[in-house]
Amino acid sequence: MKSILDYETVSLIDEDDALEIIDQTLLPGKIEIIRLHTAKEIWDAIYLLQVRGAPAIGVSAGMGLYLLMKHSKAQSYDEFMKELDEKSDYLNSSRPTAVNLSWALKRMKAHVEKVYAKMSPRDGVSGSFSDAVRPKLIDEMRDECQRIKQEDIDVCRRIGEYGVTLVKDGDGILTHCNAGQLCACKYGTATAPMYLAHEKGYNIKVYCDETRPLLQGARLTAFELHSAGIDTTLLCDNMSASLMKSGAVNVIFTGCDRVAANGDAANKIGTSMVALAAKRYGVPFYICAPTSTIDINTPTGADINIEQRKPEEVTEMWYKERMAPEGINVYNPAFDVTDNELIAGIVTEYGILHAPYDEAIRKLFSEIKK
Amino acid sequence: MKSILDYETVSLIDEDDALEIIDQTLLPGKIEIIRLHTAKEIWDAIYLLQVRGAPAIGVSAGMGLYLLMKHSKAQSYDEFMKELDEKSDYLNSSRPTAVNLSWALKRMKAHVEKVYAKMSPRDGVSGSFSDAVRPKLIDEMRDECQRIKQEDIDVCRRIGEYGVTLVKDGDGILTHCNAGQLCACKYGTATAPMYLAHEKGYNIKVYCDETRPLLQGARLTAFELHSAGIDTTLLCDNMSASLMKSGAVNVIFTGCDRVAANGDAANKIGTSMVALAAKRYGVPFYICAPTSTIDINTPTGADINIEQRKPEEVTEMWYKERMAPEGINVYNPAFDVTDNELIAGIVTEYGILHAPYDEAIRKLFSEIKK
Repeated sequence: MKSILDYETVSLIDEDDALEIIDQTLLPGKIEIIRLHTAKEIWDAIYLLQVRGAPAIGVSAGMGLYLLMKHSKAQSYDEFMKELDEKSDYLNSSRPTAVNLSWALKRMKAHVEKVYAKMSPRDGVSGSFSDAVRPKLIDEMRDECQRIKQEDIDVCRRIGEYGVTLVKDGDGILTHCNAGQLCACKYGTATAPMYLAHEKGYNIKVYCDETRPLLQGARLTAFELHSAGIDTTLLCDNMSASLMKSGAVNVIFTGCDRVAANGDAANKIGTSMVALAAKRYGVPFYICAPTSTIDINTPTGADINIEQRKPEEVTEMWYKERMAPEGINVYNPAFDVTDNELIAGIVTEYGILHAPYDEAIRKLFSEIKK
Repeated sequence: MKSILDYETVSLIDEDDALEIIDQTLLPGKIEIIRLHTAKEIWDAIYLLQVRGAPAIGVSAGMGLYLLMKHSKAQSYDEFMKELDEKSDYLNSSRPTAVNLSWALKRMKAHVEKVYAKMSPRDGVSGSFSDAVRPKLIDEMRDECQRIKQEDIDVCRRIGEYGVTLVKDGDGILTHCNAGQLCACKYGTATAPMYLAHEKGYNIKVYCDETRPLLQGARLTAFELHSAGIDTTLLCDNMSASLMKSGAVNVIFTGCDRVAANGDAANKIGTSMVALAAKRYGVPFYICAPTSTIDINTPTGADINIEQRKPEEVTEMWYKERMAPEGINVYNPAFDVTDNELIAGIVTEYGILHAPYDEAIRKLFSEIKK
């Protein structure tokens, strides 16, 4: 079996006008690399979760928008931008709540606008738009979407480099859900310290919560770590306290969906229960968070709106037959909030933040701005 | 839909030489009442978990042994007891680690021995064994297995009566796994306070953890409570902290498999994580335990041996396809231990025990002995 690290989650195959992805809906049973050419194919891949995870979706959207504009026949800047808006709106409709999707599409557009604004002479270029301006804008779009991907890889690598300082040879490491390479472009966030520890030759043992209801831990995290040759053990979500009590876990890394200004962290449902058990059994619990997921405009975890998902995910999805009585109510929140005091540190691409988080986050953001 | 309370989990149908049970392997999709006549049918029902739960297995074994001896042709007491031992060993082999199974079979044998010992004149009855002695022993076996069942119902009812004093009208109640009527003969243990609250007309809302990997919460607890007309909500095990944080849960009841002399309680895997979240969010967490599950010879939870179960329960059971990569390790303990300090009280058929549990348990046992 090839390692997951031999693949890229999302790649631009420019010579084939294609986006290449691992079809994640077939994992872990089958590793199939597919190429997406048309707008519909790209839209479907995002909608059907063939590609998933905030960073990977962002990169796919950026590259997708480039590919859809690459053969544009627009005869003027206005026409070009109108076409870009249409393609962008279409891609954005595939998963409207995914922040990185719209973020990447907006970034692509803003870059085109900036490049065009700097082009000189601006006036009078309309006559030669298709010869001079359009190819330049398209070239710039290709570079920008490649930059989005490279920045994601760099951020994950740096999170891994800081995170691996928290790992010792021989450690047991627990994670919840998938904040792995499969949701980013390389390394992932929570998995980056694991891949880097493995690179260093550390003999680590990783424990993956299966992560009900959608089983991202069993299907994706366990798959990608195991394929990379890391000693991987799967457990049900309700088993992690027992495992920690046994002394098998030395450190915990999870990803996060949003960190509030006070360090409260929203992540996949169940993360807070892992953190509670970690506190009880003295295991340090770290959140791996690119600074892009830290939201200084959200004061605390209580201000984070939690999506409720459909009952069928709990009552029938994945099962051979319906496993709960008809007519039952279902509580199915997608995320929970881990209180900042349960978090030993927040591993970012700029270093590891420690409590008090409000201060640490304020300081980090003022330094980034400089 | 009829309520679960309209059924009995296990019944003796003496006129048909049969044991009648609800086939629990078909729940929650189908309520099928089946009658077991032969030794093989009874053995299979226990082995295949058509009937399950410690008390229900005990009652089934006792009734099964009676039915298998009912038409005995033994011509002497020795012959009768030899036959009884053979039938008993056979039934006992269906689930050799189930304590209540061997307990009930031993109790049936001991009762026969006691009755025979009291029969007078003992000597010289062998000639008329088949006319005088054998029918009496068989009658006594029927009474004894009915007593085992009635005692179970009484114990559950009394646990319910004590437990319901901890419930207020309008309360949200959380439970984990199935310590319900389906594992006992009526009321169950953890569910007894819920059924009694419902009987009293309280408007309660019960939350059931699905309880991976075997989903007893989704398949059995949610089914039986819902069928009884109780407002029932299903959630994944990793969602209970989120639910408690929201304020929806006022009190928690779970069953237990064994309580140590210091009050540490072994129960279905995940129970300790519920208790940890309960502590954090100020929700009282109660264990419902017949005194038969309190083991004063086990000093602490650390002395309880935890069964590890097969990986397939986590990686493929219930699923349409294998949901984890081949070759993965699996951690799959059946139980975990909840530390006594996380337990607000232990609800027994003699009242509610409070910390310090070592004293409370010692006192209870010395009173029971009197």
